[in-house]
Parts: sequence; structure tokens; C-alpha cells
Amino acid sequence: MTSEVKVAAAAEPGESVGHDRLKRLMRRGTDFLGCEVAIMGGAMSWISERHLVSAISNAGGFGVIACGAMTPDLLDTEIAETKLRTDKPFGVNLITMHPQLTELIEVTKRHGVSHVVFAGGLPPTGSIDKVKEGGAKLICFAPALALAKKLIRSGVDALVIEGMEAGGHIGPVSTSVLAQEILPEVAADIPVFVAGGIGRGGLMAGYLEMGAVGVQIGTRFVCAHECIAHPNFKKAFIRASARDAIPSVQIDPRLPVIPVRALKNREMENFSAKQIEVAKLLDEGKVEMAEAQLQIEHYWAGALRRAVIEGDVESGSVMAGQSVGMVKEEQPVKEIIDTLVDEASAALERRSAF
Amino acid sequence: MTSEVKVAAAAEPGESVGHDRLKRLMRRGTDFLGCEVAIMGGAMSWISERHLVSAISNAGGFGVIACGAMTPDLLDTEIAETKLRTDKPFGVNLITMHPQLTELIEVTKRHGVSHVVFAGGLPPTGSIDKVKEGGAKLICFAPALALAKKLIRSGVDALVIEGMEAGGHIGPVSTSVLAQEILPEVAADIPVFVAGGIGRGGLMAGYLEMGAVGVQIGTRFVCAHECIAHPNFKKAFIRASARDAIPSVQIDPRLPVIPVRALKNREMENFSAKQIEVAKLLDEGKVEMAEAQLQIEHYWAGALRRAVIEGDVESGSVMAGQSVGMVKEEQPVKEIIDTLVDEASAALERRSAF
Repeated sequence: MTSEVKVAAAAEPGESVGHDRLKRLMRRGTDFLGCEVAIMGGAMSWISERHLVSAISNAGGFGVIACGAMTPDLLDTEIAETKLRTDKPFGVNLITMHPQLTELIEVTKRHGVSHVVFAGGLPPTGSIDKVKEGGAKLICFAPALALAKKLIRSGVDALVIEGMEAGGHIGPVSTSVLAQEILPEVAADIPVFVAGGIGRGGLMAGYLEMGAVGVQIGTRFVCAHECIAHPNFKKAFIRASARDAIPSVQIDPRLPVIPVRALKNREMENFSAKQIEVAKLLDEGKVEMAEAQLQIEHYWAGALRRAVIEGDVESGSVMAGQSVGMVKEEQPVKEIIDTLVDEASAALERRSAF
Repeated sequence: MTSEVKVAAAAEPGESVGHDRLKRLMRRGTDFLGCEVAIMGGAMSWISERHLVSAISNAGGFGVIACGAMTPDLLDTEIAETKLRTDKPFGVNLITMHPQLTELIEVTKRHGVSHVVFAGGLPPTGSIDKVKEGGAKLICFAPALALAKKLIRSGVDALVIEGMEAGGHIGPVSTSVLAQEILPEVAADIPVFVAGGIGRGGLMAGYLEMGAVGVQIGTRFVCAHECIAHPNFKKAFIRASARDAIPSVQIDPRLPVIPVRALKNREMENFSAKQIEVAKLLDEGKVEMAEAQLQIEHYWAGALRRAVIEGDVESGSVMAGQSVGMVKEEQPVKEIIDTLVDEASAALERRSAF
């Protein structure tokens, strides 16, 4: 192993010690994804579409389409359009509770998509086999150590651990705590990507040294030139600091809602009103719990669209991770990835020199 | 610098490469604190008293007395009793909004306490000079980069950046995000200790490599043999996982309360009722805002005492950080510190070998 590593390092002249170390630390990740830099794009609804996804893959990272609530037909078009823009590998993120999950998997298979990412809960029976039969690699989110082990036993090929620093729907535990609890136990057995709050290469290097094979980054890519988010949405990101990206609050104990991290604005207050409205329908027996939760999810999808596409950043939802404070300007994707790589390499180089 | 470092390493034979690296990374911190291992004990009300504080300092770390709501007389006794139990340096944590802050500083001065820690907001005018005139070093909490810079200009000697993974009163931003935002900007100018969510040495090593000179750890010390917390309190810690340590929720927008992270229990519901009660008094003009907030703080102090001292872990507040999931058993303080040091050293050794 050590000698292989040295040969590889020697075969790439002109790069720094830090860049060589970063490459070695990321190798399991880049081999797994089939790309140059083990940075996956976080799948952000309305945002992670053909343009941003192809730009990330073309820049050496690994773009991931957010299928979200898309129909199979829409996903089919999105994948086709992405393939027109890049010949590099990219992934498709599917929400496991989507009512047409089977059809969506079919679409990815038909297109020969190399990697499928499952988000939003444990995969339903049969769905893991269905993805893998098609030849794709399956990546799942592991919100706790016990679930990580369960997913490994179920045959998934890689894991993402995403802390509550992330934007959009979040779990309760921070990235650094998940990393301490999960990486030492499973990183030797399966490639693990770390996500949530990563805005600079130094922290990326830190998680790699703790055993991760790569990272997943969302917020940092929103202000990419290639991202179709409305200029108002990007401006809100550039202005915001970490403390502005707050989680939504559950108003009614009877109506469990997955918290969403977004920038403080009027919409966050509207969401409280929406919860009270839906909780009332639930109380009056006018809707079932499943329907109530679906109404909440549709509410978010609509609110996010208003902000991302229409640019209404007051009554729309400006979902953002805590790393939003480190987003300072609009930049090409390539520059964002290169900056992260250079920062991580510099951090690793300082360490080896110490 | 490098040659000094090598001499120091060579002068301590019999230790591993990792232990040597850890010592070098912590040197600014240990020089500053005057101890062997740059681990400060987090100041936890009712918990960080003579026994735990002296045990941490005697084990090579740096214990910190939590003054909390103590009177000057009580603090005087606590310091005297701590000095009977250790001849190593320790610190005293003072809450800046304590109405008798000046008298408390006097007490620390009379005892020749070497380090004072200010928590709970920006230091009032004159208090920084007052501490430093007495010859003590002053450590302050910096909740954001701008405030860190302001504190440095004010003449403080070291900073703690504490993320929302921590237990008790918390800010809104996670440790890893604060570390990315603050360390690159100020770590060269002033010693910075990182706190919040640190349960294993691997992460400690990570923050040191990002520029911290040490860490502050609270939760991990609660189940020390030397800690006086009630057996029920310790059992609750050993049973809990990270997701059980949740922040309190602000019920009324007119009554801003600093969130408190504690284990989910009946008390967390009681706190909502308490907020509604105080908000009502505020509405009716029966109390002023300052008095309302003080009532909230007294509520917490009482609730924490019920759990820590009386062992009522259902109607008391079991304040805990997210690292509570990594607390697995009762152990002597020395064993906890040695484990963290060995884990950090092993992590650093793996890195240098890669």
C-alpha cells in the first residue's frame, strides 16, 4: 500500500506534497465515483439540475441531480439534458418516499446512470436490489451508527453522513458528532462521504483524515455562475452569515415535521401558520397523518420554488446550510472546486511540515 | 521554530511519534494554561466545583470552577477548597451579567487565581482591565468572528469558540462552522480553544491541526468518578444518545431566551409552560423584560440543581452536549484525559505515516 502510494505520487510531477496527500486521502472516493475530486454535489431541489450538475462533473467533481418530486418523465428529460452537457459520471438523488420510486429507478437504469443516491429515510423493500440489478452503485444517507450498519448489511455501496449544519431537511445531530460516532466504526468497510457545514478545504481535509473518502457540498455551490438560482436567491446567500440559517420549529407536538434549515425571513413565520392550519385539520379528522405530512412537504417544495426560481426571498424559502457565511461571491464551479482543493492541500502540507 | 520543536521532541524519549506531535500542537495552549494537556474543563454549574476541578488539574488538564450564580463568599470558599485539593493551576468562570461581577473578580484576585474565564456576553467596561490588573490571564467566549476581533482589540489573552453542540446555554452556530470562520483569521494572533461536541481525541486532533491550541470539554467529564453529579444524572448520560440532547425552543417571539441544550424529558415541556407564564406577565406589564429574562435564568438554575444534586432527572434539567452519546461509563478523570490524548496521538500518528 505504502509503496503504491509513493509510486502514484511520483508519477504526478509538478504537484505539491499537499495535493499528493489529498489525492491519496480521496483515492477510495474518486475510484468509487469515477471522478477526479471526491466532492459530491448536494442534491438541492430546483437547483441541482442539468446546468449545475454537469458543471460540477465537468470540473472534476461529482454532480448529483435532485429528483425531488419530479415525475419519471421529467427525470428522464433532466438526465438526458445532463448527458448532453457532460460525458463525465454524475448521480441521481431519489427520495425514498416518492410514490413512483420504482419507475424513477427504471428511468435511471434506462439511462445507465452510474450512481443512485437514496435520501429521506430507509429504502423500501426491493428498492436496493432494483438499483443494483441495473448495475448502478447505491449511496444512502446514514443518520446514526445503527442505521449505517443496517444499510451496510443491506448491500448499499457507500454512505453519506450529513449533519444538521446542512441546508434543507436536516437531522438532529451535528456533522462533527456524527463523524466521531460513525467513521471509526464503518470507514474501513465502506466508503463514507461527510456532509454539512463544509465551506472551506481545511475542514474537508480534517474529515478525510478522520476516515471519510470524500465530502458532499451543497450550499457552497449555490452561488456558482452555472447555478440557475435567481439572482435574488444568490444575493441572499452572499449577504447571510451562519447564524441566519436557522432550523424551522415544530409548532404542534402531534404533527411531527422534519426540520428545514433556511435563512430567517417572513416565510419562516408563514410556516408556523401552515403547521397550525394542518394540525387543525388533523384534529378535526379532516386529514390523516400521512396526508398532513404530505401537505407540509408540498408546502416546502412550493416555498423553495418561489425563492429559487421566482426570486421571492421573503415569502419563499431560502434553504441554506450554516456554511452560507463562507459564500462571499459568485464564482464558476471550477473555481469553487479548485479553491477547496487548494485549501485542503495547503492544510495537509502544513501538517506534514510541522 | 522547527529545530526547537525537534529538540523538544528528542528530549522526551519513550513516547510515540503521535504523542510528540500532539505535544507540539498543544504547546501554545499548555504554555498559556500552565498545564500538561491543553484540555480545559467546561464550566458546568453545580458540577464544576472543587472535586471535579481539582481532579482535572491534578490529571494534567485545566479545571475551571463554574461560579454561576454563586455569591462572592461562596466563590471564596470554593476556590479555597479547590486549592486544598490541588497545587496545579485552575481557572474560574464568571458570568458577565452577574450583578456582583466586580466583587467576584476581587475574590479571584485575592486568591491569586491564574486564569479567569468570562462567559455570557461581552465583558462590561472596566472588567477586562480589572482582571488583568490582578495579574490573571483573561479568556473570553467568542461567538462570531467580528466579536473575536473586538475581544482581541480589548486585550483578552485567549478565546474559546463554542459551537451549539455543547450542553447548557448555547449559540446558534455549530463548532465546525465557527472553527472554519474564526481559526484562519485569528489563530496566529491569540490562543484559541475549541469547544462543543468533542467526545473523542480524533476530532480534538482535527481542531488542533486547524489552528486551535487546545479544547474545552464539559459533557465528557460529567461521568468522572470525581464528579459529584447524582448517580441518576450520570446514568441518564450513559443511556443517552446524541439525538436525545436537544435545544430548548423559544415559545414566544417577544421573550428572547438563550436556548439550552439538555436531554429530552418532562422538564423540557415544563420550560415551555414557564415561558408562556413569564410572557403573560410581560404582556400584562407585571414584569420588565430584564426581570422576565432573569426569571428564566433562575428557572434553569433551579431545574439544573434538581437534576444534578437531587437526582430528579425527569422534572430537573439534564443539560448535556451532543457528545453525550460518546459517554459510555463512569471513569476516573485521569483515564478520560489519557484516552483523549491517546486517541488524538494515534490519529496524528496515522496521518504522519500515510
